[in-house]
Amino acid sequence: MKAMIRIGMVGGGEGAFIGAVHRMAARLDGEYRLLAGAFSGDAQRSRASGIALGIEPARAYASWQAMLDGECKREDGIEAVVIVTPNHLHARVARDCLAAGLHVLCDKPLATTLDEANELARLARVSARLFGVTYTYSGYPLVRHARELVAAGEIGEIRSVQVRYAQDWLSEPVEASGNKQAAWRCDPAQAGEGGAVADIGTHAYHLARYVSGLNAQSLLADLTHAVPGRKVDDNAHVLLRYANGARGMLWASQTAPGNANNLELAIYGSRGGLNWRQETPDALWFAPLGDSPRVIRRGDVRLGAVANKATRVPMGHPEGYLEAFANLYADFAAAIHAHRTGECGPDVSPFPTIEDGLDGMRFVRTALASSRAGGVWLPLC
Amino acid sequence: MKAMIRIGMVGGGEGAFIGAVHRMAARLDGEYRLLAGAFSGDAQRSRASGIALGIEPARAYASWQAMLDGECKREDGIEAVVIVTPNHLHARVARDCLAAGLHVLCDKPLATTLDEANELARLARVSARLFGVTYTYSGYPLVRHARELVAAGEIGEIRSVQVRYAQDWLSEPVEASGNKQAAWRCDPAQAGEGGAVADIGTHAYHLARYVSGLNAQSLLADLTHAVPGRKVDDNAHVLLRYANGARGMLWASQTAPGNANNLELAIYGSRGGLNWRQETPDALWFAPLGDSPRVIRRGDVRLGAVANKATRVPMGHPEGYLEAFANLYADFAAAIHAHRTGECGPDVSPFPTIEDGLDGMRFVRTALASSRAGGVWLPLC
Amino acid sequence: MKAMIRIGMVGGGEGAFIGAVHRMAARLDGEYRLLAGAFSGDAQRSRASGIALGIEPARAYASWQAMLDGECKREDGIEAVVIVTPNHLHARVARDCLAAGLHVLCDKPLATTLDEANELARLARVSARLFGVTYTYSGYPLVRHARELVAAGEIGEIRSVQVRYAQDWLSEPVEASGNKQAAWRCDPAQAGEGGAVADIGTHAYHLARYVSGLNAQSLLADLTHAVPGRKVDDNAHVLLRYANGARGMLWASQTAPGNANNLELAIYGSRGGLNWRQETPDALWFAPLGDSPRVIRRGDVRLGAVANKATRVPMGHPEGYLEAFANLYADFAAAIHAHRTGECGPDVSPFPTIEDGLDGMRFVRTALASSRAGGVWLPLC
Amino acid sequence: MKAMIRIGMVGGGEGAFIGAVHRMAARLDGEYRLLAGAFSGDAQRSRASGIALGIEPARAYASWQAMLDGECKREDGIEAVVIVTPNHLHARVARDCLAAGLHVLCDKPLATTLDEANELARLARVSARLFGVTYTYSGYPLVRHARELVAAGEIGEIRSVQVRYAQDWLSEPVEASGNKQAAWRCDPAQAGEGGAVADIGTHAYHLARYVSGLNAQSLLADLTHAVPGRKVDDNAHVLLRYANGARGMLWASQTAPGNANNLELAIYGSRGGLNWRQETPDALWFAPLGDSPRVIRRGDVRLGAVANKATRVPMGHPEGYLEAFANLYADFAAAIHAHRTGECGPDVSPFPTIEDGLDGMRFVRTALASSRAGGVWLPLC
Repeated sequence: MKAMIRIGMVGGGEGAFIGAVHRMAARLDGEYRLLAGAFSGDAQRSRASGIALGIEPARAYASWQAMLDGECKREDGIEAVVIVTPNHLHARVARDCLAAGLHVLCDKPLATTLDEANELARLARVSARLFGVTYTYSGYPLVRHARELVAAGEIGEIRSVQVRYAQDWLSEPVEASGNKQAAWRCDPAQAGEGGAVADIGTHAYHLARYVSGLNAQSLLADLTHAVPGRKVDDNAHVLLRYANGARGMLWASQTAPGNANNLELAIYGSRGGLNWRQETPDALWFAPLGDSPRVIRRGDVRLGAVANKATRVPMGHPEGYLEAFANLYADFAAAIHAHRTGECGPDVSPFPTIEDGLDGMRFVRTALASSRAGGVWLPLC
Repeated sequence: MKAMIRIGMVGGGEGAFIGAVHRMAARLDGEYRLLAGAFSGDAQRSRASGIALGIEPARAYASWQAMLDGECKREDGIEAVVIVTPNHLHARVARDCLAAGLHVLCDKPLATTLDEANELARLARVSARLFGVTYTYSGYPLVRHARELVAAGEIGEIRSVQVRYAQDWLSEPVEASGNKQAAWRCDPAQAGEGGAVADIGTHAYHLARYVSGLNAQSLLADLTHAVPGRKVDDNAHVLLRYANGARGMLWASQTAPGNANNLELAIYGSRGGLNWRQETPDALWFAPLGDSPRVIRRGDVRLGAVANKATRVPMGHPEGYLEAFANLYADFAAAIHAHRTGECGPDVSPFPTIEDGLDGMRFVRTALASSRAGGVWLPLC
Repeated sequence: MKAMIRIGMVGGGEGAFIGAVHRMAARLDGEYRLLAGAFSGDAQRSRASGIALGIEPARAYASWQAMLDGECKREDGIEAVVIVTPNHLHARVARDCLAAGLHVLCDKPLATTLDEANELARLARVSARLFGVTYTYSGYPLVRHARELVAAGEIGEIRSVQVRYAQDWLSEPVEASGNKQAAWRCDPAQAGEGGAVADIGTHAYHLARYVSGLNAQSLLADLTHAVPGRKVDDNAHVLLRYANGARGMLWASQTAPGNANNLELAIYGSRGGLNWRQETPDALWFAPLGDSPRVIRRGDVRLGAVANKATRVPMGHPEGYLEAFANLYADFAAAIHAHRTGECGPDVSPFPTIEDGLDGMRFVRTALASSRAGGVWLPLC
Repeated sequence: MKAMIRIGMVGGGEGAFIGAVHRMAARLDGEYRLLAGAFSGDAQRSRASGIALGIEPARAYASWQAMLDGECKREDGIEAVVIVTPNHLHARVARDCLAAGLHVLCDKPLATTLDEANELARLARVSARLFGVTYTYSGYPLVRHARELVAAGEIGEIRSVQVRYAQDWLSEPVEASGNKQAAWRCDPAQAGEGGAVADIGTHAYHLARYVSGLNAQSLLADLTHAVPGRKVDDNAHVLLRYANGARGMLWASQTAPGNANNLELAIYGSRGGLNWRQETPDALWFAPLGDSPRVIRRGDVRLGAVANKATRVPMGHPEGYLEAFANLYADFAAAIHAHRTGECGPDVSPFPTIEDGLDGMRFVRTALASSRAGGVWLPLC
């Protein structure tokens, strides 16, 4: 039995959505103990959240700085920090955590500007600490299996990538009527300048890149907001060009009625096609050219090591978002255990790292620049 | 009982795909009699095809010119011509038919160049003859119902249009290995300069326009061919901008393994969303904002006049492509009957006309120009 | 070019549902000409229907007897009769047609009692005329392909058969409120004693038998009516036992809200499973034991002769109920052409014959007897 | 913050499937601490399993009796026991736990004979301890919502219940070739006399009863084994009759290739129909009579208290089996907290109790008796 990993959390107090998701994901496999937190910028609320979570009162801190101070003095202090604040704080918190010698697991985006993100990445690289970014969808077992199929040449050379992420919760100007999530996500000062393109477009972009193994060379974006007066885009149309001549389309929208979290990826190659939808994640549609399409199912013992390692219950008993999220936590835990013993980690990290986070930042910045220029092709760098 | 309509066919000899489809569609409701044809440029084959179809041998002509000559001399000569030749002949045949005083039902595209199409349209407008273009998908009952829902404001103001038409039959260079359909469709001299963008992209474009009621103001296209050496595009990525600020994405591909005729349209507005897929055409997904999505089914007697008029069998007994095609034939028949009696037709034709055909030509020409210029925005006119 | 087959129709006047379906099916491939009819028991209405259908007025008869008389005197008289009357007339009309030397294509059931059906079958066997029964669902290409897969051993020895046919149009007592279809179908005097078990249960039973190749040895039925006061069953639960030890379940209901024509067949064997749904007939789900399930698609050129012969348009362009119906007509036409030339037909008729019709009668009678006895096992003979 | 609940586990050592599932479910919401266990009848293995799970070595016991002894002596001893042994031990362990004053959460079945189960139930009723039985599927949010819709009369009076649970993992005689799960589940001495009817049929039966609110009055079963030589049934066909005249069909099979955990429930009433499938549990199909069917989605905030309380992540982010399982744990935790403070629990327990367990036992016993008698109707009591 390896000792459980001691973690703290910044942000994620009572009422926050994503903090609770992180905690469930961290608990699922029993590898983490949440021992400390700065759950809110308001000391009272941070304390109350900590107590509700069973945290020792002294370790429910009034600020992340106080948490880092307090924990560093303890023998049993935390080893890693989970950052689930609004976007504009990510980089500052992460920088301080690295400086305190802690591993970091951070929500995307890394920062609200690419400069800030680059600086953070520089710090992370020299820190000898682990840095994970929660591009959750790469935790789904069949996403990982799809990636393997592509890498193994099962669909041949990639020709076309189609990815979309559609939601509808911003179809009306809810940011102006008391919806807290909407309020900060539609405020460039807190969320960054990108709206849908950043909030969910980056997830779509990362998923496509993760499975295809391809980096776009250039893109063209047409970003709009359907809701009058909104300060950020809520509908993003993006075209992509890859080095091998392949092409991609990416659609991200938060104003598409009837869509909840309709993230769908299709990749077509010279020998076959793949299709995966997040809302029914336990099925992967695979069409070898010249044969009937088949439905690959999560939990099928024939899938091999990568998919099976990421699977908890048998085929036909559905898994979902929390299990995918927990896979990132499990990978991060394995890396921390390896770090403890001084082992080298694998060359290719199974979880998204700060480099993936940077890539997402570049995508958003380039898309914003393209769209502002009227919708022109720009290199992605 | 109205007298059946006497028609002739140009093209569509034995072995041709679309000619047989037209004949079945024409037969389904018993309103047409196929009495003459120039089924092939080869006189022998035209004759043989005619005989196989039960045509009187004298009326199986060696050329369309011969057919027009022969039929005009008969009291019981044909009233209308169906044109199902390869694309490069459409305009010449159609022009001659109009000149001979016949109604025309023509496959898209109208011509291989916009100039030729414009000239044909000019002739059609002054001819006092009916001119239909077989944008088949507008014949589906639920497509027509969707159009009604949009027109009635059920989804509010349109914000985003997503349309795709994916096939896989050109995933390999079959044009070079004896596939006749592929050979002419991939040959710019016979098919025109557009490949997928013209062959199926125009269908997608017309469908989106038909249901949304919106005309794009400008577009940007990135056309590629995935198969090395192919002379036309086989994968088309197109962005659209509408006058009201709405945006659209259109993807047409003939190199997407696993897709047969995967034409899908989704339209999102301020009050709701719609989704329809050609491969399961008897269901229309309708999501009113703030309520559970519902599945509207063809044959539901509550749908109203437009959908029910286009319906032949009850809900739950599927209809398909031939029935949709037959709906265009039924509409065209109704117009011919009205024309016989001198009645005015409806202001809005239920079947696609030469104006729709022209619009498709403009779409293709603009897309080609945009792509050749590197993928730039161009006005659609 | 073979001469078109000259047919007459009994029943199916204006407003009748199934008569129109037969006519469309007969027209689709251009092999039949409807030249005569006794469309209604009311001479005026029969005449009017005939005229509306373009029948020569003298050949729109006041009764089927008059039609047989009139047509037999003509050199160009009809060769075959389509019987689409209410059930209680089927046997009498069919008997007279056979006696007049005509081929018969008859809706199921053959008769309202098994005795009457047996007598008719006896006549048919000695008549040297063709007798088809329109178990429509056996006309679907993928149903035929499924039958081939089973016969070829692709799913191994059959172990379990699951078939259901659910509708909802009789969920309320519509027979008492002017719905003509409901009125005669819920009247034992016109429809026979079976309700759902006969009207749709026989379709489900035939489909299961057609695909599996298995005849049930015994059954047990629990027939009920959900709507108070209804004179026939509207919900049928039936268990089946086969000679090889396999078991079956059959559910037929006309009071299952949300179901239109939800006919679904699943067959499981020692090596694999099959599933087909009538409402999406262009897909056949096939799961070889120990491998990922695949989706077999109608129109796939790799399917082989049986499925492809029954296919009109390519994969991805949907076909439906009328095309399936037309396949029965096409098979019947081929048999008539062979009969004309004195050729022997195939040993196994591709279309359902009077023997299938008899089998359906036995199924209904046994189910009624089982249910009346409280739900007991009875041999099926 | 309520103190976490201290639990022990009997069975569920390394390699066992369901023990790991229970532990994940217990962890998800952070309300339980697993502090003790008798994970195996082999003392060494129990110890090893305990260590691997981070249990204090002294609390990884060699037997459940030892665990009860050891824990009762501790101030911080466990409050509740989770029983995940093979079936034949359930009752003995549960009895001893109750005698030791502990709450019990037990896998189904309660026992291998009804007598034993009745005796256990008697003890449970007088024990003043909580007794939960893990009919997992009742933990799905949309199952609970469906139950509410039925109770609220949204589908009117129930007329027909269709439930099926199909698997394929026993399609071959794997119990003879080293599959441990198969070995004990197919051995009447360890699993009880029922095979599929007990292992999964009871889940289907409970689900139907849970949602419909109806208890069957009588049933008729035809149980068979498809695999030669198997000692228990692997395919169960069951007919049900309810007091209000409604009828039901239940199919449970473990030899249906292509099915993993295909549990599906459909309930039809006088005003509407419902359909839910476990493999896509986040959608509930609801068809009000006379309107288009709608898709109710888990996470829709409009669903009301019952469904939302059982929901962890928003609409469109899928949940699955572990979350459903965790809902039972959450309900059980709430009841334990109420028990601690002496509060009365709710009249209707949200989690399945020993009475549900007994009901399942009666179902199995009656089905076995019916089938052995040749397939006859028997009262369910």
